[in-house]
Amino acid sequence: MANKRLGRQTVRLETPPSVAAAACVVGKKEGDGPLRKWFDHICDDSYFGQKSWERAESAMLFHCFSLCCDKAGIVPSELDYLFAGDLLNQCVGSTFAARDLPVPYWGIYGACSTMAECLSLAAMAVDGGFADSACAMTSSHFCSAERQFRLPLEYGGQRTPTAQWTVTGAGAMILTAEGPGPYVTHVTTGEIRDAGISDANNMGAAMAPAAYATLKSHFADTGRRPEDYAAIVTGDLGKVGHEILTDLFLRDGVDLGPCSTDCGMLIYDAAQDVHAGGSGCGCSASVLCGHILQRMTGGDWPRVLFAATGALMSPTSSQQGESIPAICHAVALDVKRG
Amino acid sequence: MANKRLGRQTVRLETPPSVAAAACVVGKKEGDGPLRKWFDHICDDSYFGQKSWERAESAMLFHCFSLCCDKAGIVPSELDYLFAGDLLNQCVGSTFAARDLPVPYWGIYGACSTMAECLSLAAMAVDGGFADSACAMTSSHFCSAERQFRLPLEYGGQRTPTAQWTVTGAGAMILTAEGPGPYVTHVTTGEIRDAGISDANNMGAAMAPAAYATLKSHFADTGRRPEDYAAIVTGDLGKVGHEILTDLFLRDGVDLGPCSTDCGMLIYDAAQDVHAGGSGCGCSASVLCGHILQRMTGGDWPRVLFAATGALMSPTSSQQGESIPAICHAVALDVKRG
Repeated sequence: MANKRLGRQTVRLETPPSVAAAACVVGKKEGDGPLRKWFDHICDDSYFGQKSWERAESAMLFHCFSLCCDKAGIVPSELDYLFAGDLLNQCVGSTFAARDLPVPYWGIYGACSTMAECLSLAAMAVDGGFADSACAMTSSHFCSAERQFRLPLEYGGQRTPTAQWTVTGAGAMILTAEGPGPYVTHVTTGEIRDAGISDANNMGAAMAPAAYATLKSHFADTGRRPEDYAAIVTGDLGKVGHEILTDLFLRDGVDLGPCSTDCGMLIYDAAQDVHAGGSGCGCSASVLCGHILQRMTGGDWPRVLFAATGALMSPTSSQQGESIPAICHAVALDVKRG
Repeated sequence: MANKRLGRQTVRLETPPSVAAAACVVGKKEGDGPLRKWFDHICDDSYFGQKSWERAESAMLFHCFSLCCDKAGIVPSELDYLFAGDLLNQCVGSTFAARDLPVPYWGIYGACSTMAECLSLAAMAVDGGFADSACAMTSSHFCSAERQFRLPLEYGGQRTPTAQWTVTGAGAMILTAEGPGPYVTHVTTGEIRDAGISDANNMGAAMAPAAYATLKSHFADTGRRPEDYAAIVTGDLGKVGHEILTDLFLRDGVDLGPCSTDCGMLIYDAAQDVHAGGSGCGCSASVLCGHILQRMTGGDWPRVLFAATGALMSPTSSQQGESIPAICHAVALDVKRG
């Protein structure tokens, strides 16, 4: 068996799995933003027909999963694996979405990096010969996240300029062993970094050093440079975190250049009053499964590095005065297989 | 590339990874129980030298990880992957334990099935050629779990006869591509099952149907029968759930027999007043990494099926009247490689 390890954190997939289909479902605010044309479904009802926001999140994710299966022409019982997770305590957004699904299920927690973590493991499962098909999916919901992580919505708390807005959105992607691409070619798995930031309203600053570390390892492990990618899309550092990331690379004499952007900066426009940008598992997931993938298949972006970031604190750890550990997982996608 | 899939839910590892080392650390109550001689470290201080129970859990898990690395003769920076998760909101038990570790990190959430899920993915990562070594670990702590899932400890609430006691314990296991065994030979990944049980004080009943479904699939996929195993160890159904599991198989005319037991039944004795038995991620993890593994290496149990179960609810979902989805992941361990 060939060792697929390239350097310390990266593996090169021997037979890169193909994206069979992807789907994304978002809420009204996201549908009012600049990426509206790339979403599969925009739901004006923040309850998604349910009676609680937690159920709404599960319903949104289930709908997204169903759309993805339909697009791939795969029924759930044919799927070999489902990798899923979300921000809710005990990941109930995903487990309740999957409670009736006849698919072997892997529960994942990577905070806002969950889509990249699920996609990495799904790609490895297919490439490793363990599955012919695997789905990666995740979600977040502004209302379920606010009340769990911050304050009751009714309180109407003021938001700091560095705060990000949790995206109401879900993304799902199905990989298969064979197909016309795009392909997942490399997986760079993050180590946890704690920069000592303890302000939970400044997650961009907390996560930027993790993104820097993972991207730096990816370039070192693969021998690639930023300009080898048509786009390097972090998610979701937001405006503040993305500026820090850019500065960290500039100190090394590396210009990430105009190809570098962030899902949290792409999903809303300035007029939407979201301060530093979008966040939440659903942010990078819905941007990947809509905008990024379609820019690839449309010919604009032949090769993309998708690097989702996660802040690994909890409200309890923040109340106990802990700083915020963070992680970033990167996945290289390519319209060509090798 | 060989397809390693056996039937719907099981994969057979092509080059079964070897257990390089395992370690387990528990609290005083667990150290007073019948498995005391198998634990590596029993800590009488429920705070593990820290100032909060959440920090205590992370300190316990970190200590367990360090012990495991020492036993394996591997320094953390040589480990290719770390798979970890726990019961605390946003899995902070694990992420804070790993916040200073230079190891590519995969965050997992499988509730009390987390050890089997981590071990499955670690084995697949090694067998798939993505890693030469990988660690699977998890923890739970009675005090951090009680206040998060149930009531403040000071309240002194009465416990129902079906309730289980969250184990204060951690387990870590390192797999390597080569070694003298025992080996991980098969992985059977669970589907989520919801039996309609909504009583969070009866998790054994909620999880037993998931254990039944996964074990049944394992036998069907592999062609093995219960008597092909020296021990089938679920964890942690407890006494109530294990009786239901036994009954479900008896309805099919299958007698799981005397080889069938449960980590939640093994870890405490009746005099310890734990009602239906132990639970928590640390229950099956500490029993696997101590008792089970040493029974294997000692020659008592040449082949074991380790089937950890998880209840996938949250306090919020229970308060909203939801029933409890559950999952069970099974891993076959063998002193022989093939």
